[in-house]
Amino acid sequence: MLAISGVCGLGILILLSLNSNGFVTASDNQPFKYEIKEFQVPLDHFSFLKNASFNIRYLYNNSFADKGNKRSPIFFYTGNEGDIEWFAQNTGFLWELAEKQGAVVVFAEHRYYGKSLPFGPNTFNKTMPENLAYFTVEQTLEDFALLITYLKNGADLPVVAFGGSYGGMLAAWFRMKYPHIVIGSLAASAPILQFPGITPCDIFNKITTSVFHTAYNGNCTVNIGKSWKAIENVASTDAGKKQISDAFHLCNPLKGPDDLTKLLDYIELVYGNLAMANYPYNNSFLAPLPAYPVRQMCFYLKELHKTDADLLQAMANALAVYTNYTGTVKCLDISSNSNADDSGWNIQSCNQMVMPFCSNSSDTMYRTSTWDFKEVSENCVRDYHLTPKPNDIILRYGGRDLSSISNIIFSNGLLDPWSGGGVLQAPNDRVHVIIIPEGAHHLDLRKSEPADPPSVIDARQKEATIIASWIEEFYIWSKK
Amino acid sequence: MLAISGVCGLGILILLSLNSNGFVTASDNQPFKYEIKEFQVPLDHFSFLKNASFNIRYLYNNSFADKGNKRSPIFFYTGNEGDIEWFAQNTGFLWELAEKQGAVVVFAEHRYYGKSLPFGPNTFNKTMPENLAYFTVEQTLEDFALLITYLKNGADLPVVAFGGSYGGMLAAWFRMKYPHIVIGSLAASAPILQFPGITPCDIFNKITTSVFHTAYNGNCTVNIGKSWKAIENVASTDAGKKQISDAFHLCNPLKGPDDLTKLLDYIELVYGNLAMANYPYNNSFLAPLPAYPVRQMCFYLKELHKTDADLLQAMANALAVYTNYTGTVKCLDISSNSNADDSGWNIQSCNQMVMPFCSNSSDTMYRTSTWDFKEVSENCVRDYHLTPKPNDIILRYGGRDLSSISNIIFSNGLLDPWSGGGVLQAPNDRVHVIIIPEGAHHLDLRKSEPADPPSVIDARQKEATIIASWIEEFYIWSKK
Repeated sequence: MLAISGVCGLGILILLSLNSNGFVTASDNQPFKYEIKEFQVPLDHFSFLKNASFNIRYLYNNSFADKGNKRSPIFFYTGNEGDIEWFAQNTGFLWELAEKQGAVVVFAEHRYYGKSLPFGPNTFNKTMPENLAYFTVEQTLEDFALLITYLKNGADLPVVAFGGSYGGMLAAWFRMKYPHIVIGSLAASAPILQFPGITPCDIFNKITTSVFHTAYNGNCTVNIGKSWKAIENVASTDAGKKQISDAFHLCNPLKGPDDLTKLLDYIELVYGNLAMANYPYNNSFLAPLPAYPVRQMCFYLKELHKTDADLLQAMANALAVYTNYTGTVKCLDISSNSNADDSGWNIQSCNQMVMPFCSNSSDTMYRTSTWDFKEVSENCVRDYHLTPKPNDIILRYGGRDLSSISNIIFSNGLLDPWSGGGVLQAPNDRVHVIIIPEGAHHLDLRKSEPADPPSVIDARQKEATIIASWIEEFYIWSKK
Repeated sequence: MLAISGVCGLGILILLSLNSNGFVTASDNQPFKYEIKEFQVPLDHFSFLKNASFNIRYLYNNSFADKGNKRSPIFFYTGNEGDIEWFAQNTGFLWELAEKQGAVVVFAEHRYYGKSLPFGPNTFNKTMPENLAYFTVEQTLEDFALLITYLKNGADLPVVAFGGSYGGMLAAWFRMKYPHIVIGSLAASAPILQFPGITPCDIFNKITTSVFHTAYNGNCTVNIGKSWKAIENVASTDAGKKQISDAFHLCNPLKGPDDLTKLLDYIELVYGNLAMANYPYNNSFLAPLPAYPVRQMCFYLKELHKTDADLLQAMANALAVYTNYTGTVKCLDISSNSNADDSGWNIQSCNQMVMPFCSNSSDTMYRTSTWDFKEVSENCVRDYHLTPKPNDIILRYGGRDLSSISNIIFSNGLLDPWSGGGVLQAPNDRVHVIIIPEGAHHLDLRKSEPADPPSVIDARQKEATIIASWIEEFYIWSKK
């Protein structure tokens, strides 16, 4: 999930090449197998203006379901900002649990992502900004509601929604608005409170700083805190610009001041991504990374440096943990954070996903930045002809007033910067909050690994028990 | 609320002339006083297509609120299919309770009704069918959500939604979808189950028949059951047509077979309206009527008649209880059931309010009629360029699966034909069902009258206690 502040941005740099062609099964080198299907949905669920429709994709696997049981549960992943195959391959817990609990697996692709494009190749055509009009949470939830109704095919089945990050927000909101369609939701690392006025805008960067501060030694955040100015100092001469370009192996050497800003913004993004993907084993979720990559990066920043040049070189070495862990990247392309999926999230940030971010250099490793909604809004109008509605989400989903919701598990890893916008206290006894002290961004949704810390093993066990109890309760009430 | 079947229709014939001009207070001859205000809402809450907006009206009275209490409750009527002033004057219970409980009174007008027309005089322009696109339940609920948020003005206030009939459906759905905005709802005579596949289509006409059957003596329904054919028989000659036209004092004498059909459909509508407005005192809710008008009508049908002509005359006398109780109506205009408000409901019947109605002459006093969705749909396309979505409401509001809802009172009078589509069993202990054996259509929402039967007095008392408990609980939780 990309987080956009007024001045600088944090986000996911997706470096995967996805194998999403074909219609039958995922490629052999991917661990989880499925059929790729399509489902027709109305373009606009909420007006009677036109009858246009398009297809969303979904992934389907019923191999775990008990064939003698016509009422097997459905585990339904509410797809988020990206190609749905990527989420299917990075949500191993759902697959493991489906096997244990005999559930049908469905991963539904979010409209405007992957291959679920309402206007095909013209979906993001800059000359047709009206094509973005139906790119909203509510339209997406309706897609899912219709798809589940279709999949149930008239039978009374227990359906559980799963999602991580923005997908977790969707899973939670889906249960809130359609409790008759899903019996419960697992909302992993779902920052449903990261909206204006209900969460301090600096919390994401404060948590990231804390993660970096404790990863190796405290010099890590001291160095990063000094690096912004140090890099600027070095960049003040042409020789310095070359020195920076060489140190970071930039594909496009620094020239003007804009290039420097882009580099610094890119570096800032990397810190957030590293904290999110700070998993206890090698992984390729956001980029090919070692186990505990923050610790690895901070290892390169463990010494305090006397000169800007020394600090610069240490920074470059540290950054390579994220940008070139495989050692195969020839040069660093800092513009690569705007692939199709990130651009989708940029658009959502300009309609409903108005998440304030800011930071203060006095208590974080970041530069000071403020949240300026007016500027955000002007940029949105300029870039997409969209005027953001900063109050939409709180108006519809209640902000911090969650007293009436039920059957939602909110899990949050305390190493995850998004936990600052998560639900960390249960509003009532029908809602479950699971805290994973050693967890990064929705670690619990990933498949089991030998290196998993006890807290995530425990969290998954709790989640499995709660979900099983929902299903059992469903069968009792509906007289299986 | 108008109920449209494939063959014939039942509905409210609104014969009131409303005093809705001016901006300040209701006229002196109306019992309840308010300011008339306006509130700007987006035309389309659910897309980012355009930024068009328009004003909805609402009525406001804060004279009962404790001026020392900045957190007085708001009693918010979710306006339904008509001019909001009409509902304000016919919902006396809300006013009485507001006075007792120190609440601010708000009656919000439903978009596309009264003076809350999105496209002004062109709203229903037949040459601009696209103007009807945003005439939906969800858009309306969002109007209310925004208005309440505006009225709260940042304060943490308890808001209770009230509504009767379709307004009760809106009140219930509003609590389901926006539990963070209203602490509870009183949904009086709200047939939220009157939708395809979840309630038998003949239930409305069966209940009406039962009400008529027990009103005076059983001959009433026998006579009505015979009357359809009797009137047809008499109408088979020109002399007969004149006889009918004279007996019913038709403004436009019968000519072709279409005229006869219209007359019979009109009569059928009257029966439903009489059952709905079968209150224990004179009233002008749907038309100027005596107390217990069904009994009054059936008094004229207490004898079995030997000839069609005799039956016809008895029918004409009986019908006048509804059509000319004041004795001042010079002739009967059977086309008057399509005033602006009824035409609004006709449109909603062609988008989301797809309510199946049918009847069987073998077990009701009605002609046999079937529910033919295809025909309904074709007529909707012909009349409004609208293709009805018969599954929208169940998809969004759960049909009979209400297990997760809370803090809604569903009250139903057993004399009300709409009770057949009402919630008569509480799905859980957070939902209250109040049955009023002697009640017609949302009798409990009307102001107290000396003739009120004990069951409605008791119902109002229960409703008052439950609503007070919600408010008390709110203050405890939010630390008054």
